[in-house]
Amino acid sequence: MTDAPMTASASTATAGEVLSRYLTEQAGNFLRALPQAVGEAGARPGTLPSLNSPAVSPSAGPAGTGELLRAVRRIGGALHTFGSLFDPSWAEESRAELRWLLNLLAQEPALLRRSARLLTALDTLSATDRAGEAGGPGMLAGHQGAPKARALLDRQLTLARTRAHSAVLQELRSARLHALADRMTLLVGEAPLLAPAGGRVAEVLLPQAEVAFGALVGAVQALPLQRAATAYQGDALHRLGPAVVKSSGAPVPSQGRSAVAGGAGAGDADSALAADDAPWHRVRILVKRARYAGEVCGRSGRELEGLDQVLDRHQEAADAAVTAATAARTPRITPATAYVLGVVHADQRLEVEAARYAFGCQWPSLSFGLDGWEGSPAPRMA
Amino acid sequence: MTDAPMTASASTATAGEVLSRYLTEQAGNFLRALPQAVGEAGARPGTLPSLNSPAVSPSAGPAGTGELLRAVRRIGGALHTFGSLFDPSWAEESRAELRWLLNLLAQEPALLRRSARLLTALDTLSATDRAGEAGGPGMLAGHQGAPKARALLDRQLTLARTRAHSAVLQELRSARLHALADRMTLLVGEAPLLAPAGGRVAEVLLPQAEVAFGALVGAVQALPLQRAATAYQGDALHRLGPAVVKSSGAPVPSQGRSAVAGGAGAGDADSALAADDAPWHRVRILVKRARYAGEVCGRSGRELEGLDQVLDRHQEAADAAVTAATAARTPRITPATAYVLGVVHADQRLEVEAARYAFGCQWPSLSFGLDGWEGSPAPRMA
Repeated sequence: MTDAPMTASASTATAGEVLSRYLTEQAGNFLRALPQAVGEAGARPGTLPSLNSPAVSPSAGPAGTGELLRAVRRIGGALHTFGSLFDPSWAEESRAELRWLLNLLAQEPALLRRSARLLTALDTLSATDRAGEAGGPGMLAGHQGAPKARALLDRQLTLARTRAHSAVLQELRSARLHALADRMTLLVGEAPLLAPAGGRVAEVLLPQAEVAFGALVGAVQALPLQRAATAYQGDALHRLGPAVVKSSGAPVPSQGRSAVAGGAGAGDADSALAADDAPWHRVRILVKRARYAGEVCGRSGRELEGLDQVLDRHQEAADAAVTAATAARTPRITPATAYVLGVVHADQRLEVEAARYAFGCQWPSLSFGLDGWEGSPAPRMA
Repeated sequence: MTDAPMTASASTATAGEVLSRYLTEQAGNFLRALPQAVGEAGARPGTLPSLNSPAVSPSAGPAGTGELLRAVRRIGGALHTFGSLFDPSWAEESRAELRWLLNLLAQEPALLRRSARLLTALDTLSATDRAGEAGGPGMLAGHQGAPKARALLDRQLTLARTRAHSAVLQELRSARLHALADRMTLLVGEAPLLAPAGGRVAEVLLPQAEVAFGALVGAVQALPLQRAATAYQGDALHRLGPAVVKSSGAPVPSQGRSAVAGGAGAGDADSALAADDAPWHRVRILVKRARYAGEVCGRSGRELEGLDQVLDRHQEAADAAVTAATAARTPRITPATAYVLGVVHADQRLEVEAARYAFGCQWPSLSFGLDGWEGSPAPRMA
């Protein structure tokens, strides 16, 4: 599919032909997935069942929406990285509309994953050798607050998902979405390329992909990887604050950033506390861009895919920690409930730290995976 | 001092001579440190200042007490490992009395260290770039519960220290302590050795030291080191419960185990939840025994010293987690306070996990350090 290496015949194609083929495929994926996603959203009731209901699979989001998001991310990434080959205002508008759809659609699956993550963590923390072989008693075993904290998180996340779902339903038949679909239909036919796209792949596409990869390398070099490189440095747990991101209105920095609605309606937005997470979230976006740029150029990018997954985990754990901290500010909860939410918050920040550690372990291996990418600055780690 | 290797002349000494020399030295340390420790305890007021007072150094306990504990642990360990060379009832009684003194004296410094550990952790978690260079804002920054949780922990630990101090004051001039001092005076003169002590070091002492080391290797092989060997497996955080050990009355398993008074007066003792920590605490004792046995035989044992420190940290973090969990059960605390205590609890369990990871990393290096110790089973890691 998308990850297949370029065939020999493709190596004689122009940059524009290669890029068009990629965009045609992705726009086709978009148009196939769109009605499926619309149908899925319409089929779901306005008020979603909580995760306690056996009807909801906690791990997998709706398939059509997932496919749609995959295509949206790839088209947006390609339009960003190879933007100079397109009509500038068309590319800019297209990216803005794709970003809008991404933020609209990504919320609901993200909240579903967050529910699964937090409630699973809570159940693990309070497990009393239910499974038998799974080892000792949970950290919260016998703690009165665990069921209440579980009910509170479930309630708040279900409410947030209901809101996100309503937003999706409202926009699914909007003129704005129709206009975006028309853009994608145009892209299936022919991308509005400029003259330089007639050049060779190695002279036109590769240098721009290298720029995307160089931006990633630069951003990673600015990360505190030395802190993260040793396990248990308490990087995330000790030094970071619960990043409470405003659930609406705040501009989303870039494509690929899933919306991080606060879960609970409350939550003092304190963006200063999110400052330590921000560079990691930024690198996540750059990894995705480099990955998709590699796909356009026919590189498999398995290492980048691994890093992408690690940073998705980083983002999701950071968002889940915010949700736990926000829930702890709910008025009139019991101290036992708040205690459990404190443990859950710290547990998710530990996941953040673990993801950073995993990133620090995986990043150096990237130099092997990209040796066919001439001229790209190989990442070097001390 | 104690760790100096045996001189060449010592290699022709009998087992009894080597053992006597070690015990003489340690008993001398005991007798020198005892009046100093008594003076220190008497000089301190009945009600200790809290750690907020600048007069108290949080890291270092009283020097005399520390020296006394060092000697008590070593004599007790030697009497255990080389017990067959002594009159059995004399050795057994001596060990029981040394254990009593250890449990009496170790509590106060342990509580002092626990205060420092917990309050430092709290301050780190709630630091708002106070230091400037130390990095981002703390996890609890701006959280109302942090000062209240700090005050609560400080109050409860100060109360526990006051109680431990009263117990020390009560026993310091007791007939029981005088009788133990008399035993140590006897030991400075001559240890009551049996006939087999006239044999050669290699034939009498080394085999018994090897037994002590073998017991350690066996206990370590039973540890879930595979779980601990990979960072961030959530071993401690996910699977373990807050071990609330009864603050009095419960028999202390063995020498070297510092008393783990609950801090708060409350606390439902739930020894089932401590089951996962127990084998690690047991290994800590066996490491100390193997270390002191090595000292008797003139081995430096630097690797064992490192493991000893790691497991001391493990024990202290586990005890501190219990204190945080116990404090969270204090009646009438606010949810914000309880939330912070939950974070602190999880933070200490993370320290437990980190100590296990460090142990798993250090343990394999032990095979290098003991190659002069013939016949000892070298630890092997998969």
